[in-house]
Amino acid sequence: MSSRSSNSRIACVMVGLPARGKTYIAQKVCRYLQWLCVSTKVFNVGNYRRKLHGAHQMHSFFDPSNEAGEIARKEAAAEALKDMLRWFEDENGTVAIFDATNSTRDRRSFLLNHCKKHDIQVIFIESVCQDEDLILQNIMEVKLSSPDYKDMDPERAAEDFRARISHYKEAYETITESDYTYIKLVNVGSQVVINMIQGYLQSRIVYYLMNLHILPRSIFFSRHGESIFNLMGKIGGDSDLSPRGRKYANALPKLIHEHLGDQPLTVWTSTMKRTIQTAEQLPYPKLQWKALDELDAGVCDGMTYEEIEKKYPEDYANRDDDKFNYRYRGGESYRDVVLRLEPVIMELERQQNILIIGHQAILRCIYAYFHNNPHDELPYIKIPLHTIIKLTPKAYGCAEIKYKVDIDAVDTHRPKPQPKSAKQVVNGRSSIASSNPLTNVAS
Amino acid sequence: MSSRSSNSRIACVMVGLPARGKTYIAQKVCRYLQWLCVSTKVFNVGNYRRKLHGAHQMHSFFDPSNEAGEIARKEAAAEALKDMLRWFEDENGTVAIFDATNSTRDRRSFLLNHCKKHDIQVIFIESVCQDEDLILQNIMEVKLSSPDYKDMDPERAAEDFRARISHYKEAYETITESDYTYIKLVNVGSQVVINMIQGYLQSRIVYYLMNLHILPRSIFFSRHGESIFNLMGKIGGDSDLSPRGRKYANALPKLIHEHLGDQPLTVWTSTMKRTIQTAEQLPYPKLQWKALDELDAGVCDGMTYEEIEKKYPEDYANRDDDKFNYRYRGGESYRDVVLRLEPVIMELERQQNILIIGHQAILRCIYAYFHNNPHDELPYIKIPLHTIIKLTPKAYGCAEIKYKVDIDAVDTHRPKPQPKSAKQVVNGRSSIASSNPLTNVAS
Ligand SMILES: Nc1ncnc2c1ncn2[C@@H]1O[C@H](COP(=O)(O)OP(=O)(O)OP(=O)(O)O)[C@@H](O)[C@H]1O
Ligand SMILES: Nc1ncnc2c1ncn2[C@@H]1O[C@H](COP(=O)(O)OP(=O)(O)OP(=O)(O)O)[C@@H](O)[C@H]1O
Ligand SMILES: [Mg+2]
Ligand SMILES: [Mg+2]
Repeated sequence: MSSRSSNSRIACVMVGLPARGKTYIAQKVCRYLQWLCVSTKVFNVGNYRRKLHGAHQMHSFFDPSNEAGEIARKEAAAEALKDMLRWFEDENGTVAIFDATNSTRDRRSFLLNHCKKHDIQVIFIESVCQDEDLILQNIMEVKLSSPDYKDMDPERAAEDFRARISHYKEAYETITESDYTYIKLVNVGSQVVINMIQGYLQSRIVYYLMNLHILPRSIFFSRHGESIFNLMGKIGGDSDLSPRGRKYANALPKLIHEHLGDQPLTVWTSTMKRTIQTAEQLPYPKLQWKALDELDAGVCDGMTYEEIEKKYPEDYANRDDDKFNYRYRGGESYRDVVLRLEPVIMELERQQNILIIGHQAILRCIYAYFHNNPHDELPYIKIPLHTIIKLTPKAYGCAEIKYKVDIDAVDTHRPKPQPKSAKQVVNGRSSIASSNPLTNVAS
Repeated sequence: MSSRSSNSRIACVMVGLPARGKTYIAQKVCRYLQWLCVSTKVFNVGNYRRKLHGAHQMHSFFDPSNEAGEIARKEAAAEALKDMLRWFEDENGTVAIFDATNSTRDRRSFLLNHCKKHDIQVIFIESVCQDEDLILQNIMEVKLSSPDYKDMDPERAAEDFRARISHYKEAYETITESDYTYIKLVNVGSQVVINMIQGYLQSRIVYYLMNLHILPRSIFFSRHGESIFNLMGKIGGDSDLSPRGRKYANALPKLIHEHLGDQPLTVWTSTMKRTIQTAEQLPYPKLQWKALDELDAGVCDGMTYEEIEKKYPEDYANRDDDKFNYRYRGGESYRDVVLRLEPVIMELERQQNILIIGHQAILRCIYAYFHNNPHDELPYIKIPLHTIIKLTPKAYGCAEIKYKVDIDAVDTHRPKPQPKSAKQVVNGRSSIASSNPLTNVAS
């Protein structure tokens, strides 16, 4: 067998005091892996606690000397753990994220042994934060609006939450278990300790975590202005902007400035003429990414959809059946594009304000990363021409605003066709294993 | 300006006792970055010491209480540092690697301040190793054959080298400077500590270091067996194997077994028929990488070189002028291919025995990574059909054996044409900045 077993199962076990970003990190890792076609799920013990024992538990519930509280909390954790194991077995999961404080050696050793018995690798992800201002800010941002404090006075809620943290602090033991696989993030990654990481997926998760930051910023998307090929209904190619497309390019600088002010910004384009021309008037530093080039339509490049339907009727039908996995002859599938965009996403995580001038398929993939759209919807996401989309990452998601520019353009969106009867078209070219970016064909 | 300044200069300063793999790491990082088109150079203080003060210095030279020795060693380091700064200024270098023990806080603080003054970022790379067997093995493998011990009895040389280590141990202070940028590798990466890493290049270097291992292994390359398109002299496409190509595929299993025995192996192919068919008979786990697909010849896909010369005479001439940077219309350049192969190289570093069944241009790029071939030679490296190349990484390089299989095949190699007069053909499509994988067009 390969040293990177294709069916390795990983439990990421979060570790840290309350308000250290555990849930934030858990959700981001989940979103990233799901986007990369790795089956991933978060098990949040807090949600189990609320379901079993109700919300509105005051801090005394978390006091280690409160025995009833401790039993109740253990019960919630046991329930989450059971569901997690079931998910691995029944739904063939690959990465589970076990989101709780797990702040004692005892607890971690219990979880590790339990997972080992079920042949699940464990990687502990600890967040340590000594920055009191940041912790306070986290409490304000996400804790006061938690169901635990519904309808409570914010002052009192914050005070109660700080008391909850104190209870956990009494028993907290940071990870020093030298034979465990772990990553420790200190002060949002200004220091990172990595221990005993092995395997492809573990290393990807670690690299992703290393690159996260939480500074406020926005990400702007725009498709290139209308192109000559857009006008002709042709796909692909490397055509120039149409007169209306050039008008859009001229309108962009003012529009961006209106919504960004004097903040710094970097503009990313593909290496294709229509995105470079669209960015031309923008007074910001620019980068060209080959990885941002439009989905390669292979033999169909430069054709209209009608021509494709006539020349390759079977391919055309297959594409509508499973658009995410359909790979053009000699070209790419959406799945291929997601994998080649991975470095772009990693770099986006590292950067602050970015404007991407891109192509329809490319922006669908990037948009889906931020909004966690499932893969079967991804190829139908609407990214209209002559529109700016502004995403602003928030604690557990992304705020979105669309700015439509009043310059006409053709509509290039093709809605998902109605399902045709029960006929199953199997596409032989899309058999890529879903658990990693390679096709694993064990012989 | 972009938060990733395009003209940031980095000095990687090695830290660690003798025989901890500092030079090994320095050379690997240098090779990796050069391959990625980042201008990089190693400055090895030991070489300066030997040039200034001769080889054959016994351990007493390294005794901290030997004042003359200390002055001489400082002199060598100062000389190396001076050359490094000159290289940044005069040759516009991007990453310098300063290879010496740098084992005291004083020394590191001196280097950091010196670099800061010249606007050079410093990242310290420390290797810590507590495994005495490994250190002994390192001494045997590389130190006894060093010019320092030329013609000396191995027993005595090893003893002297251990005494040298002891001298350094007296004064050694591991990095704990919490405001420095550093990566600490403990026991060949079983633990890694990363502090204050920022920026794209720093993060790439760190990720690369995280993924290195030193277990013995071999990497086998083969092109696919002869294909129908090879016979027709056509490039690209996705054709089947020719009858002789199928013969080669049938011969492979026995051949590989002869040179590998019963060791485990994983076979990597592209997603194209000719590599998959070549691997078909091999009884090992297989992975298909889209990233291993042949260089995309764009509009020239499926044409013969004669057809290309006729249809696109100017492009054809440009290609021979700067083949590494020439990008086919609607296709790729060798430079593009290197960038898309980066994840393959990273994964190769992580794996043990691997056989890659690939394509000519792809294998040229991978081969060049291991042998550090300059980019202008890379597109002309000979990778003949029906031949297995076996690379075995050694301390500071790679051993190579070629096994030619006795099955005829066409010759697809086109030698570099003789330079034509002084005429300069400028290729407008190849203007990719050489210091990072993106084109930075500051406005
Ligand atoms: N590494 C980090 N260190 C500190 N704060 C972070 C980190 N990463 C994200 N955050 C911030 O943490 C906040 C979210 O806190 P989160 O709910 O994830 O905490 P938690 O550790 O899950 O707390 P609890 O134990 O109560 O569930 C967000 O505002 C986010 O910006
Ligand atoms: N992280 C590591 N820890 C220990 N040994 C390593 C590591 N990486 C590589 N090696 C081994 O180190 C050997 C090479 O040692 P190298 O010459 O690089 O040591 P050095 O630290 O440069 O010593 P010196 O201070 O004498 O120059 C190789 O055999 C290689 O396998
Ligand atoms: Mg939480
Ligand atoms: Mg050395």
